[in-house]
Amino acid sequence: MVARSDAFERRGALERRGALERRGALERRFGAADTAGPWNEVLATQLAHRSVRRFLDRPVPEDHLRAVVAAASSAASSSNLQLWSVVAVTDRERIDALATLAGDQDAVRHAPLFLVWLADFARSERIATVHGRELVNADFAEGTLLGVVDAALAAQNAVVAAESVGLGTVYIGGIRNEPERVADVLELPQRVFPVVGLSVGFPDPAERAEVKPRLGFDVVCHRDRYRLEAQDAGIARYDTRAEDFYRGQGLPGSWTGRIVARLTDPGTLGSRRRLRDALRERGFPTS
Amino acid sequence: MVARSDAFERRGALERRGALERRGALERRFGAADTAGPWNEVLATQLAHRSVRRFLDRPVPEDHLRAVVAAASSAASSSNLQLWSVVAVTDRERIDALATLAGDQDAVRHAPLFLVWLADFARSERIATVHGRELVNADFAEGTLLGVVDAALAAQNAVVAAESVGLGTVYIGGIRNEPERVADVLELPQRVFPVVGLSVGFPDPAERAEVKPRLGFDVVCHRDRYRLEAQDAGIARYDTRAEDFYRGQGLPGSWTGRIVARLTDPGTLGSRRRLRDALRERGFPTS
Repeated sequence: MVARSDAFERRGALERRGALERRGALERRFGAADTAGPWNEVLATQLAHRSVRRFLDRPVPEDHLRAVVAAASSAASSSNLQLWSVVAVTDRERIDALATLAGDQDAVRHAPLFLVWLADFARSERIATVHGRELVNADFAEGTLLGVVDAALAAQNAVVAAESVGLGTVYIGGIRNEPERVADVLELPQRVFPVVGLSVGFPDPAERAEVKPRLGFDVVCHRDRYRLEAQDAGIARYDTRAEDFYRGQGLPGSWTGRIVARLTDPGTLGSRRRLRDALRERGFPTS
Repeated sequence: MVARSDAFERRGALERRGALERRGALERRFGAADTAGPWNEVLATQLAHRSVRRFLDRPVPEDHLRAVVAAASSAASSSNLQLWSVVAVTDRERIDALATLAGDQDAVRHAPLFLVWLADFARSERIATVHGRELVNADFAEGTLLGVVDAALAAQNAVVAAESVGLGTVYIGGIRNEPERVADVLELPQRVFPVVGLSVGFPDPAERAEVKPRLGFDVVCHRDRYRLEAQDAGIARYDTRAEDFYRGQGLPGSWTGRIVARLTDPGTLGSRRRLRDALRERGFPTS
């Protein structure tokens, strides 16, 4: 009886701690928390996500890389085609070249490990060639999407896995600035396209990377049909909260102001305005 | 002293159990396991992923949906633009219509909850309009990719969160078969595109959904530069393993045979051959 009572007490204490952790995690992300709901280590890891741009001078252990890629491989893949690959870059010269191509980013240059997630039809094309057949289904926008989604799902599983073992990460969209030159650095064959980069390493605690506030449930989740105007109130609330967050990081301006700045001027896309041409040159003609 | 010795013993037992679990999970997925490496609940959840196509007749609780969407919202987003939304469909008529459009799939028709992950520039366009500006950066292939990758990262976090609370899921690429008609069903405005669907519910244990074998680390993960020929041996090993798996499911043929069948005949893409036109009609001109 004493043992059972102890077990009950321990379980009660764990549940109270879980409820507190849950409330804290939801409030950091959304400014508010539902009163109750499920909670576990997986949700705790996901809710605590933050982008890490400064890393300790310490390599990523081989068994950590293998665990991260095993998680990536376990993500769903359309018809199990597995139209993705990843290049794990640790060679300093190549990382330096990629950092420059991605917009001269220190978050790449000083990362102990840089992962480049690839939409990969080269593997399938080789298989088709062995069978005496021609790979043609990469030649459609749908083909591009199949590869891009496969690569993105794998990458996101890798991020969650990495964070679960104490690593930090930041996605690098700048890898799409100059796809042809990235292909040169990584010796990518035709039919392979760099979708997104990911810097990986042990977080430098001096960075004070913080959990970024996000739009609330009522803005992003629609019931049975999409509603545009109904998002206005939630967007306004988020704008205030996000502005406070950015100000705390020494960055002026609102979230809606950032949306306008980023999406109403093609200049902000830089060389990525030519992405369709780059896709075509890499063997993704998106006809 | 007794208490400390107990704690040591308990920790030792937990570590041994973890090592066994880890080996089992890796062997199911890859046919082999490294001798040692990190292991935790997150990796265990990810490695155990399987597609679930049959669900119990039991609704997904509201607090589970909220937890899943909170995880989705916590995924990284390019420049925090949050260019995604999700429609949570429980209305049986709409689910039925979507099931038909997605290729007459029972995995959609009988799901208690169907999530449609959207690349969403409509929210940003509304914000730009309020600011008296015109949203133009959706008009590039890069814009399409920004929205697609944001939606895919959110969806994958949702999958991992759902599985962590006992739900099962299966991605439905068929939601891209007829994007215009899906837009009608979900009342999607221009600048919103359905990227991928996701059936969600409590798994029906009668289905016996199994962990699908995947290509090994040496095939998908390249060191510093991409290598094509070096994948051949690993592909051949996987082909044997995957053929055994498919045979166990009553499906003849090899994995490489499936690659050839799916990617060398445009007919297998069906209406998705016209995806570029569908994107343009939805306000993603990919110029």
